[in-house]
Amino acid sequence: MSARPRVVIVGGGFAGLDAARGLRSADVAITVVDRHNHHVFQPLLYQVATASLSPGDIASPIRWILRRQTNVSVLLADVRSIDLDRKCVVLDHDEHLPYDYLVLAPGATHSYFGNQQWSDYAPGLKTLDDALTLRRRMLLAFEEAERESDANRKRHLLTFAMIGGGPTGVELAGALAEIARHTLRQEYDAIDPGSARILLIEAGPTILPSFPQTLRDAARRALRKLGVEVWENAKVTGVEQESLRLGTDHVAAHTIIWAAGVAGAPVGRSLGVPVDRAGRVIVRDDLSVPGHPNVFVAGDLAGFTHQDGNQLPGVAQVAKQQGRHAAANIRRRMAGTATVPFRYRDPGNMATVGRAHAIADFGWARASGFLGWLLWLFVHVMFLVGFRNRLSVLLQWGASYTTYQRSVRLITGTSTSPPSEIRPADGRSSDGTSH
Amino acid sequence: MSARPRVVIVGGGFAGLDAARGLRSADVAITVVDRHNHHVFQPLLYQVATASLSPGDIASPIRWILRRQTNVSVLLADVRSIDLDRKCVVLDHDEHLPYDYLVLAPGATHSYFGNQQWSDYAPGLKTLDDALTLRRRMLLAFEEAERESDANRKRHLLTFAMIGGGPTGVELAGALAEIARHTLRQEYDAIDPGSARILLIEAGPTILPSFPQTLRDAARRALRKLGVEVWENAKVTGVEQESLRLGTDHVAAHTIIWAAGVAGAPVGRSLGVPVDRAGRVIVRDDLSVPGHPNVFVAGDLAGFTHQDGNQLPGVAQVAKQQGRHAAANIRRRMAGTATVPFRYRDPGNMATVGRAHAIADFGWARASGFLGWLLWLFVHVMFLVGFRNRLSVLLQWGASYTTYQRSVRLITGTSTSPPSEIRPADGRSSDGTSH
Repeated sequence: MSARPRVVIVGGGFAGLDAARGLRSADVAITVVDRHNHHVFQPLLYQVATASLSPGDIASPIRWILRRQTNVSVLLADVRSIDLDRKCVVLDHDEHLPYDYLVLAPGATHSYFGNQQWSDYAPGLKTLDDALTLRRRMLLAFEEAERESDANRKRHLLTFAMIGGGPTGVELAGALAEIARHTLRQEYDAIDPGSARILLIEAGPTILPSFPQTLRDAARRALRKLGVEVWENAKVTGVEQESLRLGTDHVAAHTIIWAAGVAGAPVGRSLGVPVDRAGRVIVRDDLSVPGHPNVFVAGDLAGFTHQDGNQLPGVAQVAKQQGRHAAANIRRRMAGTATVPFRYRDPGNMATVGRAHAIADFGWARASGFLGWLLWLFVHVMFLVGFRNRLSVLLQWGASYTTYQRSVRLITGTSTSPPSEIRPADGRSSDGTSH
Repeated sequence: MSARPRVVIVGGGFAGLDAARGLRSADVAITVVDRHNHHVFQPLLYQVATASLSPGDIASPIRWILRRQTNVSVLLADVRSIDLDRKCVVLDHDEHLPYDYLVLAPGATHSYFGNQQWSDYAPGLKTLDDALTLRRRMLLAFEEAERESDANRKRHLLTFAMIGGGPTGVELAGALAEIARHTLRQEYDAIDPGSARILLIEAGPTILPSFPQTLRDAARRALRKLGVEVWENAKVTGVEQESLRLGTDHVAAHTIIWAAGVAGAPVGRSLGVPVDRAGRVIVRDDLSVPGHPNVFVAGDLAGFTHQDGNQLPGVAQVAKQQGRHAAANIRRRMAGTATVPFRYRDPGNMATVGRAHAIADFGWARASGFLGWLLWLFVHVMFLVGFRNRLSVLLQWGASYTTYQRSVRLITGTSTSPPSEIRPADGRSSDGTSH
């Protein structure tokens, strides 16, 4: 294996996986490094967060996904920095991973626009753990409200605020409204889950700015029909424990979710090359790092400006194409031929709004409502990794659509502190907290 | 609602649910209280722990299970104690829940035979959180071993010890062996998962003492064929961090699981009535608490001695029948008729050993091997709550059987500490731990 060029791919997301696959038949030794052992189908994270799907439905072990590819090995590790001079990736435990070619695809993290402290009160939704934490908080909010006698506190518990009117915020708001207005409605006595306030707060003039006007309007109508309060031109100026500030206005909300800004993963800065305002590495048009033709950046960390002058959005389709393109350019460099500039082929854009409504923009055609939802369903199921996941997810959605039931409404992660063992001496329980 | 007798059921497990259902048509106001919002199908917990099934496959929200029963409401709360004199259940937040009839069915917890400190190093498997913690530990053990250069440390990481040779220990050991010897085998380079040591340690003379001799032997053979080391007459005298003591022997094991003793939930002692050595409340033959004919105990907390002098085991079948019987006796007391003693109808006993092998004892008939496994499959699927769960679980098992793949091999709960946001000033990542 020592004679073959070593390719290190940082990140097992859409870009990293497609880069690995793109080198399937190349004579290289690939190592894929990720801090998680699984690949997450991020577009459906909001469904895990709203108890519609299980983590297992949208995630698969990276080792399992790449099991048939013989030239790749997988490492579970945290990448601390990239040493471009020594050509190695620095991991946790001070381990060094040397490379001949590098594809840096660690994705994005949340940006709080300089207000790091807000992250304690308004978590984001980028990983499975984020989704499970949100699910837990949401379900507990209803349970606590059921036991709460103070009317104001009850209303506060039943207020959910989504900050950011892009697809993530819209999809979360829609799904939350469905669960409150339909799924949970019959199951509580002291509260009416249908009276929950769901706020979608967007600083700019409109939600879903990346969609054409007609589809934005369709989405806004659908959200309002579900009872979501859509606030546009509403800039959040402060986030505290269970409370938001918009200028002089204060809003008390037990659950606040951040879907407003992303930034390139911090490891991008360790390269020491220019990054844009959102922390994305400014790449050359062949996706390589200026001055380092063997190092490529793909996915959400890549700050790529298209020929038309627009920055590419951080969506799955872009990441997959860039991953594949980086792999192709590595093969070209190995063969001694010139690399080719990246050209994005936009397959379209979609977002769901509630249970059976979606907007879909394919450029030459648009759809909204139930038809849009069928298209969305088809596309997402086909892109899921693994046949069993597809069947399982179709099963869940089929059941949800016909019955409104959310089958994964489990509060895990210790709702209360259980006692762990009897103490024979005094007979009282010992309270132990568990993970 | 105030005129109707109030029935409080503590616990939404097998006994509590069947007690609630048994009062479906009674003119009562029922409150089911549980510290978790979901009912777990405990017999399959080991499959969540070994990454074969998702939590959502074996658990359902209690509210959802009881949604069609109009005389029941559900409360998520921790029960601190029972005040028999004032006839109320004391909850967390100092809330008091008065009752006219009480069914106490909180289940069992782990007993470390007086060595409470062992619980830090040898957790048990009673809740979904237990299962997810174990799954995480198991998967991380393989990942860490892959990166470990020291041979002893590597062997230590790949050693798994199950303390307790009852069905739980046997099923866990078998499932772990399958995952190491088959599922993970192809996916690692630096380690051979198949070389993992899996120890099943039983203090008594034989594993599975509740099964007839021929079936015990069949199980032992199947375990050994899977490479499990079955240690009988092996009494654990000490448990420390990643290490076991058996008299003068020391065994280093990164993962130690306790499946050796259970005790009635601590709330049982708060009754102030006699309990047996395992903390179970000694009930009268109609399942009521001596001196308190309106209070019943059902399930793992009930210390019930059958006519033949044997104590009933803490298994699902016993809990379900007792729950139903307690409900029937409540109806009799409401009607002013005499209560009836409980009689257990033993439907049989089963345990799996690995992927497609099980032992099944129906008294008049026994089965082992593949046939035993088909029977086990059928029984467990039928008893799962909810059609969608049944279909989903059948799907998972069908795929596992044909492909050996474990689809839920996800490490969640933060394998490493991810940076939370870029600090523009110094460019270094900030490490934040998440839940």
